[in-house]
Amino acid sequence: MAKLTVVGIGPGDADNMTLRAHRALQASRAIVGYHVYVDLVRPRYPDKEFYTTPMTRESERCRMALELAERGKETALVCSGDSGVYGLAALVYELRGERSAPEIAVVPGLTAACSGAAVLGAPLTHDFAVISLSDRLTPWPAIEARLEAAAAGDLSIVLYNPASHGRPEHLRRACGILLRRLPPERPCGVARSIGRDGESGMVLTLEELADYPADMFCTVFIGNSTTRVIGGRLVTPRGYRHG
Amino acid sequence: MAKLTVVGIGPGDADNMTLRAHRALQASRAIVGYHVYVDLVRPRYPDKEFYTTPMTRESERCRMALELAERGKETALVCSGDSGVYGLAALVYELRGERSAPEIAVVPGLTAACSGAAVLGAPLTHDFAVISLSDRLTPWPAIEARLEAAAAGDLSIVLYNPASHGRPEHLRRACGILLRRLPPERPCGVARSIGRDGESGMVLTLEELADYPADMFCTVFIGNSTTRVIGGRLVTPRGYRHG
Repeated sequence: MAKLTVVGIGPGDADNMTLRAHRALQASRAIVGYHVYVDLVRPRYPDKEFYTTPMTRESERCRMALELAERGKETALVCSGDSGVYGLAALVYELRGERSAPEIAVVPGLTAACSGAAVLGAPLTHDFAVISLSDRLTPWPAIEARLEAAAAGDLSIVLYNPASHGRPEHLRRACGILLRRLPPERPCGVARSIGRDGESGMVLTLEELADYPADMFCTVFIGNSTTRVIGGRLVTPRGYRHG
Repeated sequence: MAKLTVVGIGPGDADNMTLRAHRALQASRAIVGYHVYVDLVRPRYPDKEFYTTPMTRESERCRMALELAERGKETALVCSGDSGVYGLAALVYELRGERSAPEIAVVPGLTAACSGAAVLGAPLTHDFAVISLSDRLTPWPAIEARLEAAAAGDLSIVLYNPASHGRPEHLRRACGILLRRLPPERPCGVARSIGRDGESGMVLTLEELADYPADMFCTVFIGNSTTRVIGGRLVTPRGYRHG
């Protein structure tokens, strides 16, 4: 039986893939994924078989990948960013359950917390929390509780899925919760289209962030109590002394 | 004037570097870093000038890199894992201050949260917090407050620097704080020597973790309320329905 490898391809183009991810795709015969991500890797691996499913069909996509491996094809399931962080690795393990086959391997990739931070400066040099504002699979009160906890712990915060079709108000609501504890002038940032044409970063205050028209291409950063804007960059010091 | 690029080389060997990080090192004339990380990249880039400083000399290392760039040498400052997460990118921005030169670029790399998660299964598929147990630069009470906040918010938790010379008891103390809120049977994991010879993963309970003899090569994962052990792997479901 063949192996299923869940591969994080990082953000945007193939430049942000690791050598290990690249080799995992080369070693596969079938590549499975959401069509947007499959289209990103297709030009570099023209000899592979490609299988795609539409958005929100995650279980179907993972089942297809498991079945291809069970039928003897070395298979790669591609995820944007990391294969773990909000990726499909967990669902693949869930669907395989306690069976020992097919073998599963997970190849990590650059998640938007790291790649977006680099666009803005260095906002995650100290402890931080990663929270998704999507309530498709998580009840909104649980999201609120996590935002409150992260603010209470003075963690820098990265928000994934700050807005998408049907939920444009989530970022404003999240900022409202954070503003109960954090000052309106707290430095924040938005990284957009990371690793793609038009990549951009914007530094703004928490108060301004509440009015920011975020879309599904944005990753949002909220600084901790020590975060500063230095030379236009968003910087959270680690605490090194320097004169 | 030349550019200073802060490059995250990922964990262990060069396989976990991105293509972009590889190209940034190729394009540099000088490579600066802690000697252990410089030795990891040295064999692949034999034509470069190498500059190293001992452990804990972070400010000196960053100043040296800034000066090399100011003197006209394209310079790369290498960090293990990511260049941002507990890396040197922030300190470089701090030391340059409001000066516009030299130009600074940050190239992200795989941080141990993502690479260690992949070793263990998929523990970070939902919201999580990253917390360092090192009190060299952070007062211990601040670390405790962050652990409590993360547990209160039902975030999965990744612990960096769970132990090192002179602070072997930090992991036990951290588990003690978490055990006030979390059940002793909460699934946890330890990833060790990620990306190096002898890489290993161990799944254990929070109660067992308190007695685990962690060292500086370990990254520790604590599950959230939904984290389960499936087929020996540590898995935090995202919440997809599947029958």
